[in-house]
Amino acid sequence: MKEKVRVAILGLGTVGSGVYKIIQKQKEEFPFKVGADVEVAKILVRNTKKAREGVDMSLITDKWEDIINDESIDIVVEVMGGIEPAKTYITEALEHDKHVVTANKDLIAEHGHELLELAKEHKCDLLFEAAVAGGIPIIRPLKQCLAANKITEIMGIVNGTTNFILTKMTDEGMEFADALQLTTDLGYAEADPTADIEGLDAGRKIAILASVAFNFRVTFSDVYTEGISNISAKDIKYAKELGCVIKLIATAKNSDTGIEVRVTPMFIPKAHPLASVNDSFNAVFVHGDSLGDAMFYGRGAGELPTASAIMGDVIDVCRNMAFNCNARIGCTCYKDLPIKSINDIQSKYFVRTLLEDRPGTLASVASTFSSNNASIDQMVQKTKYPGTAEVVFIIDNVEESLFKRAISELRAMHYVKEISSIIRVHNDLNY
Amino acid sequence: MKEKVRVAILGLGTVGSGVYKIIQKQKEEFPFKVGADVEVAKILVRNTKKAREGVDMSLITDKWEDIINDESIDIVVEVMGGIEPAKTYITEALEHDKHVVTANKDLIAEHGHELLELAKEHKCDLLFEAAVAGGIPIIRPLKQCLAANKITEIMGIVNGTTNFILTKMTDEGMEFADALQLTTDLGYAEADPTADIEGLDAGRKIAILASVAFNFRVTFSDVYTEGISNISAKDIKYAKELGCVIKLIATAKNSDTGIEVRVTPMFIPKAHPLASVNDSFNAVFVHGDSLGDAMFYGRGAGELPTASAIMGDVIDVCRNMAFNCNARIGCTCYKDLPIKSINDIQSKYFVRTLLEDRPGTLASVASTFSSNNASIDQMVQKTKYPGTAEVVFIIDNVEESLFKRAISELRAMHYVKEISSIIRVHNDLNY
Repeated sequence: MKEKVRVAILGLGTVGSGVYKIIQKQKEEFPFKVGADVEVAKILVRNTKKAREGVDMSLITDKWEDIINDESIDIVVEVMGGIEPAKTYITEALEHDKHVVTANKDLIAEHGHELLELAKEHKCDLLFEAAVAGGIPIIRPLKQCLAANKITEIMGIVNGTTNFILTKMTDEGMEFADALQLTTDLGYAEADPTADIEGLDAGRKIAILASVAFNFRVTFSDVYTEGISNISAKDIKYAKELGCVIKLIATAKNSDTGIEVRVTPMFIPKAHPLASVNDSFNAVFVHGDSLGDAMFYGRGAGELPTASAIMGDVIDVCRNMAFNCNARIGCTCYKDLPIKSINDIQSKYFVRTLLEDRPGTLASVASTFSSNNASIDQMVQKTKYPGTAEVVFIIDNVEESLFKRAISELRAMHYVKEISSIIRVHNDLNY
Repeated sequence: MKEKVRVAILGLGTVGSGVYKIIQKQKEEFPFKVGADVEVAKILVRNTKKAREGVDMSLITDKWEDIINDESIDIVVEVMGGIEPAKTYITEALEHDKHVVTANKDLIAEHGHELLELAKEHKCDLLFEAAVAGGIPIIRPLKQCLAANKITEIMGIVNGTTNFILTKMTDEGMEFADALQLTTDLGYAEADPTADIEGLDAGRKIAILASVAFNFRVTFSDVYTEGISNISAKDIKYAKELGCVIKLIATAKNSDTGIEVRVTPMFIPKAHPLASVNDSFNAVFVHGDSLGDAMFYGRGAGELPTASAIMGDVIDVCRNMAFNCNARIGCTCYKDLPIKSINDIQSKYFVRTLLEDRPGTLASVASTFSSNNASIDQMVQKTKYPGTAEVVFIIDNVEESLFKRAISELRAMHYVKEISSIIRVHNDLNY
């Protein structure tokens, strides 16, 4: 083993700073943990002039060449985010036989498989524990601890921003716009929160999780996504009455007929472990054929939690270096499975409507649902307005295409004044 | 890599049968997962005559020599339990350069460190993910994913039998004896449930967890244990009123003044993630300096969940064999830390008393507590009997020795008719 393992950090934003801090904090521990010192060799930034408190400025560079051409650098930690130039840098690092640790979900969800191939070719590690659910150990447990299971289902709350918004809406009765504003004011939401609130961020993470769990290459383009911007305080109130909370759930299922991967808001029964995952916490719920149900819970983002996952990977690379066994666990995708179209996926649905208040309306709505193979599991009519009534339905498991047809038929009917909300419902309300 | 990895199973009880089943179920997958077939070479049992459904009887033996002298056997899976002969077999297996996977918490909690040394000497893996919390990945996440953290606290619900009993007492108002009887009738409790209900089983698991998390050798003899047999339905009712549930908690803390390791019943605030871990589920809550709070939840026992953890270890051994890097992660204990005596540990306490109902009694009790540095955080007096009143106190953080002195002074006072219950309380009731 080398005396010193030298690490380059690409990007010194929130997570990069966390990585730098942990390397300082753990300085004395590394020799015991990996049999070598671990030190920061270089830090790649865009602006070398910017003051950076507590950082050794002699390590700062804005030239990739300083890193890629430095043969003493063993590990490249990529925490810039985005596809380019991260992809080029990682590719070149692997081509130069440098190990890579990344937190880049966009890149891994899109190009993870080809990069893992390249890593294997060069006998390098390419680790990405931090790309999903921040500090929570989930990639390594799936690849190793649960490796003897057929994983049949994953359900994750993997976006802290939307979970914080939904928690505020649930606990304080806020509307979406106000909760989003609060989240922005608190600095939790990005300047452009689209990727979070529209479920794209969660979509990238579930693509990665599904690939690892099902041993099959799922990319972001395979994922159906819906966000939370249409969820109203009223829907949340109905959810409560039905013994549920609304969460943005990233789901992947592995059934005999194919793989389903999607992100949608969902009614989750209160007794389900995911229902009590609140604020900006994340959790990943897994069902394995031998394991049964399990859940992994913790901080899905933030400087030190994310850096904790990255540094766990760095320590793994170092231990592999000591035993000359890098690339020991690379890409674990070896299956070929069909991916289901969203139209073929069965779901339960919550449907909130505004109907004309006259005899025969409900019978007609019910018959529209049933003629499309959608049966009504529950129905609640509580609020009446002059001439109209708010009626909500829980529709039993039905294929999305049939459900959509029922909805479009309903929309065309003159006594259906409004289809106000459509939200998916967890398969087992009696969980 | 060899074409076939050959596994011997020691013991064919519940968990051994699970291991056998998973090896059959995953037959087609092993070549993709580890680059080799994995097959059962021999199964060691006490009674070779017993019929065993679905098991290839030609593999059954009652002679350890058949296994230890068979050079084609690469991995020994020990699922017999107990200290001997398991310790001898594991020792001999390692001495014969065979890798070992075990679920034996008694053995690992007592002799884990010496066995890990022996494994290292022989460049063998000795893995024990299944020894703590059954199917839940916790040893590997602590050793790898969280390796860059200083873990400061672990709190676990790691005994399913007691958690099931406490859940029944909480949900259905049962008394301990009835809930234990139900648990026995359902086949969840052992014939002799002492190790479970007195916290010994949990004590062994927390010794292992503390060793792994704190990089320091903690053995079972370092663990203070209290069981749940004194918990009454009345205590559980008071817990509810205080916004808590009572759980049997295995705790390990790593503070500047030393390490605390203990198993005790505890009031847990309802908002804490551990509070909603019910029935026979287990969970391990971890706090790391970088990670923050995290929790691992799932099945802590049972045939297939425990076998899932064992087979995850077996797959790890195979992957190490393929890269010739066995013993890559062995004993991770390199620190020397003081272990605190239970007398020096600070706790909050719930104290239920029966006091003479006359003026001055409460003032006198309060003064006894305060003269021992124990301050009353909350006090509830609800039930009056002729001449006496039931009064409960929540006592703020105080050293156990001082608290005990206060209690023994109280017991000596004629107006204290009874100290009915003493139960520890989670540090943060407003969690």
